[in-house]
Amino acid sequence: MSGKVYEEEHTVKYYEGDTLGRMSLPMLINNLIHVSETQSSVLGVDDAFVKSRGLSWIILQYGIEIKRMPRITEKVRIQTQAMSYNKLFCYRDFNVRDEAGEEIVTVHSTFALMDLEKRKMVRVPQEVIAPYESEFTKRLIRTPQPEKVNEEKLAAKTYRVRYLDIDQNKHVNNSKYFEWALDALGYDFLATHELMSMNIKFEKEVQYGEQVQSEYSLRKMEEGQVLSAHRIVTEGKTNCELSAVWKALEE
Amino acid sequence: MSGKVYEEEHTVKYYEGDTLGRMSLPMLINNLIHVSETQSSVLGVDDAFVKSRGLSWIILQYGIEIKRMPRITEKVRIQTQAMSYNKLFCYRDFNVRDEAGEEIVTVHSTFALMDLEKRKMVRVPQEVIAPYESEFTKRLIRTPQPEKVNEEKLAAKTYRVRYLDIDQNKHVNNSKYFEWALDALGYDFLATHELMSMNIKFEKEVQYGEQVQSEYSLRKMEEGQVLSAHRIVTEGKTNCELSAVWKALEE
Repeated sequence: MSGKVYEEEHTVKYYEGDTLGRMSLPMLINNLIHVSETQSSVLGVDDAFVKSRGLSWIILQYGIEIKRMPRITEKVRIQTQAMSYNKLFCYRDFNVRDEAGEEIVTVHSTFALMDLEKRKMVRVPQEVIAPYESEFTKRLIRTPQPEKVNEEKLAAKTYRVRYLDIDQNKHVNNSKYFEWALDALGYDFLATHELMSMNIKFEKEVQYGEQVQSEYSLRKMEEGQVLSAHRIVTEGKTNCELSAVWKALEE
Repeated sequence: MSGKVYEEEHTVKYYEGDTLGRMSLPMLINNLIHVSETQSSVLGVDDAFVKSRGLSWIILQYGIEIKRMPRITEKVRIQTQAMSYNKLFCYRDFNVRDEAGEEIVTVHSTFALMDLEKRKMVRVPQEVIAPYESEFTKRLIRTPQPEKVNEEKLAAKTYRVRYLDIDQNKHVNNSKYFEWALDALGYDFLATHELMSMNIKFEKEVQYGEQVQSEYSLRKMEEGQVLSAHRIVTEGKTNCELSAVWKALEE
């Protein structure tokens, strides 16, 4: 498994940070995707190329491991690599390294190609995948599934899809699911916990005008650690499931 | 009037764009403020320096003129300059130029310094302002006021302050007022109009946990142009007023 590696430097801007000066997860994801888009563009297979074939990339799943989040004004290197692919799925890794070269965030992702007209996944064509020089393999990579919400401990907040949640693809931008899920946990929880890992699985697109229900349940794990399980729901249908592990911050 | 000029290059990222591939106004403002923060840092008077004096910058007003918004993947130059100041107010200009050197966005802004303990504006101290080399003048610059909303034609949407709306200063980030105001206009309006100018006046901070009422009224101007007047209200108090002029996009 070894596709071409692409890397960019990023200095975390003030507005990308949260109340504690940590880079926010939605902004981190935005910047990871930005780096993979730039790689595609450098390799001559940008979004326009893919679209001209009647196709569009969709993200199915992320597995995220966080040693620590980058901080405001910190200079990091974001690296991405298309690892391998099979008939339907493409596996892409990301990592974020600090100035000392330490890997502080690692992300495994699963992408697929959708036929824009038929709205269904298609076999990955050679002309789109070849430039990444990733390995073809029949092997399916099983990314861990998000933990299910505990229905008996369910809490929820509702969100309206905003104009700026929709991007040029006329879809809800990926990073918004993270925002809906995390925000439901509330200020007190988010300002006193540090995110350690997350699994997220996208199931069905949210449409503009829909009312988004962001549901979650919390479960205590070992000392100081909490698991949050989330579900993004519109009109009774699950759009996205995710779970996260948190560490309580010391005072 | 001639303070030190500072400039940075910025390539508009995909996630900074809206449904039509135009850079969003909140993201534009975020990046302007980023450039002014970097200037302050370069001049040795960054936020931490100001805070160590018990002070904090607050933004009172923006006057924004837009020839056209930068587009996704476009490379622009963002320039800022502290123009002049008087006892209480500091005037800072921004402009955005495209690769041909044309000025496509111009912003005039009014800043002041707040005593963090007394929560009121203070006289601008020399040690904070001198490095910018802007001119002291007794003259007050009168930025045009936003037009008032028409109470009889009022429409409104409500918003909840989200965790990520709050930045490291524990305040609602400036760019969120733009989001609340614009979003209330709805997808159909925003996707068929181009922003030409905006005046915005910040009056009172929004606090976390408050319910935000984003009110607006529309008025037809000359052919194809519309004026939108906005008010951000929490618990009956006005936090911010703004008005904008829009041009209908041709099909």
